[in-house]
Amino acid sequence: MKQSQLFTKTRKEAPKDEVSKNAQLLIRGGFINKEMAGVYSYLPLGLRVLNNINDIIRAEMNKIGGQELLLTTLQDKEVWDKTDRWSDDVVDNWFKTKLKNDTEVGLGFTHEEAITRLMKDHIQSFRDLPVYAYQIQTKFRNEARAKSGIMRGREFLMKDLYSFSRDVESHDFFYEKAKQAYKNIFDIVGIGDITYLTYASGGTFSKYSHEFQTVSESGEDIIYICDKCKVAINEEIIDEQNSCPECGNKDLRKEKAIEVGNIFSLGTKFSDAFELNYNDENQEKHPVIMGSYGIGPGRLMGTIAETLSDEKGIVWTEITAPFKVHLLSLGADEEAEKIYNQLQQKGVDVLFDDRDKKAGEKFADSDLIGTPYRVVVSKKSIESGGVEFKKRDSDDSEIISVDDFLERVK
Amino acid sequence: MKQSQLFTKTRKEAPKDEVSKNAQLLIRGGFINKEMAGVYSYLPLGLRVLNNINDIIRAEMNKIGGQELLLTTLQDKEVWDKTDRWSDDVVDNWFKTKLKNDTEVGLGFTHEEAITRLMKDHIQSFRDLPVYAYQIQTKFRNEARAKSGIMRGREFLMKDLYSFSRDVESHDFFYEKAKQAYKNIFDIVGIGDITYLTYASGGTFSKYSHEFQTVSESGEDIIYICDKCKVAINEEIIDEQNSCPECGNKDLRKEKAIEVGNIFSLGTKFSDAFELNYNDENQEKHPVIMGSYGIGPGRLMGTIAETLSDEKGIVWTEITAPFKVHLLSLGADEEAEKIYNQLQQKGVDVLFDDRDKKAGEKFADSDLIGTPYRVVVSKKSIESGGVEFKKRDSDDSEIISVDDFLERVK
Repeated sequence: MKQSQLFTKTRKEAPKDEVSKNAQLLIRGGFINKEMAGVYSYLPLGLRVLNNINDIIRAEMNKIGGQELLLTTLQDKEVWDKTDRWSDDVVDNWFKTKLKNDTEVGLGFTHEEAITRLMKDHIQSFRDLPVYAYQIQTKFRNEARAKSGIMRGREFLMKDLYSFSRDVESHDFFYEKAKQAYKNIFDIVGIGDITYLTYASGGTFSKYSHEFQTVSESGEDIIYICDKCKVAINEEIIDEQNSCPECGNKDLRKEKAIEVGNIFSLGTKFSDAFELNYNDENQEKHPVIMGSYGIGPGRLMGTIAETLSDEKGIVWTEITAPFKVHLLSLGADEEAEKIYNQLQQKGVDVLFDDRDKKAGEKFADSDLIGTPYRVVVSKKSIESGGVEFKKRDSDDSEIISVDDFLERVK
Repeated sequence: MKQSQLFTKTRKEAPKDEVSKNAQLLIRGGFINKEMAGVYSYLPLGLRVLNNINDIIRAEMNKIGGQELLLTTLQDKEVWDKTDRWSDDVVDNWFKTKLKNDTEVGLGFTHEEAITRLMKDHIQSFRDLPVYAYQIQTKFRNEARAKSGIMRGREFLMKDLYSFSRDVESHDFFYEKAKQAYKNIFDIVGIGDITYLTYASGGTFSKYSHEFQTVSESGEDIIYICDKCKVAINEEIIDEQNSCPECGNKDLRKEKAIEVGNIFSLGTKFSDAFELNYNDENQEKHPVIMGSYGIGPGRLMGTIAETLSDEKGIVWTEITAPFKVHLLSLGADEEAEKIYNQLQQKGVDVLFDDRDKKAGEKFADSDLIGTPYRVVVSKKSIESGGVEFKKRDSDDSEIISVDDFLERVK
């Protein structure tokens, strides 16, 4: 895409009321727009990143047998009464509104109830199990404060998968597969080495739930890391669990962290409430065993902005970047245009800065937007034999031939 | 995909309270689930169709220079006060809710206000124009009645594009391009021949707006068609415009129709309210000329279900279908599995009915789901030299060799 066509502009300063680093950088780069506290629009660059992240998540969910669907925002009181989660005294972050006939409806903050009711139409026999269904859908949570940018929104995208299994063994088997899928996702987006499988409080049906926590100064959680096992313990259970649950190590490293995902065994809590049962081979009735698996694509994008960035801007990986290559023309429009066309033909995602701007401004914008590869075409580079090639995560640039460049980014 | 893995089941009867044909068929086929009146979830088969439709729309919007973004549901009163559209007396289908601090916020039923405000950050000069920005995003409208299935929802997906041009000429130029893009979309999904460009009431800034109306008994609108020009007039303006606006023909055919799209010249209504101005080459200030262009992907899916269906189910086209091929094994699982693998390798989207069900049930399900090509593998077909091949929109089947079949659907 030609940058002269891109309607968004970068800005030198973030809005004064924006205190989070992720939103500051993303607003300055033209990735997102703040509509109100905790409510952000995604502009073309931001939507490209978000879609990249969604595609990564989707691929991993499909690999473990997930079937994608799309549930609704508007939620029926009757459904939530079954689990006693309708009342604002029980759930304190509902948004609620009213139909014309004065019936109160809620805006879904999660979807266990909706999907359990739905599955009653589709699960009757052991032959119908297991089922793994997920969605990437907008959730609404009436947060009292929303100062963490896109890491804690009042309106935000969530990937939520729900598993339905016939017994604890098959549930546990899938739970481990989901754990691995989550690890893959964080590896692929580039935060795998600072993200820890974290033991957190469970529920009636399991001792622990598991979170994935990314070490960051801007995190809202505290975790205790076992560097031997590369796992962590959430502070909320450190009193009961003060050593590594895997090796017993008590020498734990305390860090602030961002919760980028969580997986939870639900047991029969929801299937009991909705009478979601199946008949086994002997026509005996059993409740379905459930699990839920959440990850916020927007929060993940915010976490990347928090952790993979420097004072100049964000440092996207190839797979999350809005464009793979940022091509800058410095007074060599004809030569740059030719390279632009070659990249397009090769199917390389390229943002071409064809604007009539000074070099300093183009460089600053390039660092702020943070594509992994920057290539500068100028009279000087051409005289030196090609283009100036630089990786966003390196300070060194080099002059290479156009052919060599095309080979490296293909 | 193997149908034994698909978690949804078809059903013989639609829910009794469901009066619309589109929702009846789509619920029976396992495409959608009714959460409450006017609020439908998309199940895996339905989401596949919806995504196909979104991709068709997206491609046409990108072709005319559209840049995709994603605005928010939650809307700020202050923004809507600018155009006096906040009050429930002015707009009677708002859903509203409250933040924790008691601030009222709305759920967006359209986004002219939000995007005009956004563009103030990005449009200052004639060099920044034109801008064409669109989204495929969930809208909320508090409909008093919602009895048309996914054709009129309280919560529904909308593609809304907004154009920002420097003058009326460049606006008109784009408006015609958008008209053509819309025609392309309706052609591609298969309803082009029953969909008419329809003159409808304009506003302060243009004599007409334009709708795209698909002839259907279930339509809520009345149109008068000029069969010479293949255009129509909406009943709402028939008193002022009782002849074809293109040829003057007064011999018009009256039909019920579904509004599947509309395009509208907004003039400076919103740019005036938000002071969205640009400086021209002489540093003179002018308001930006705007247009809006809407199409509901869910409504379009519902319209296809209404108009491209028979008593047995829906008849999707290749490009909208959840799967291109429905492969049915009737007691020849091994041979069918082989063909399934071959189709998968060729990248053909195939649903493989590997279930242990009777032939009649498999045929009925296949017609209800409505994939364009059905292929049956049975002992009998193998003895006759191959597979039984049938198009959904034809009553005739034929026995063809496996190679011939693979060639036809590749």
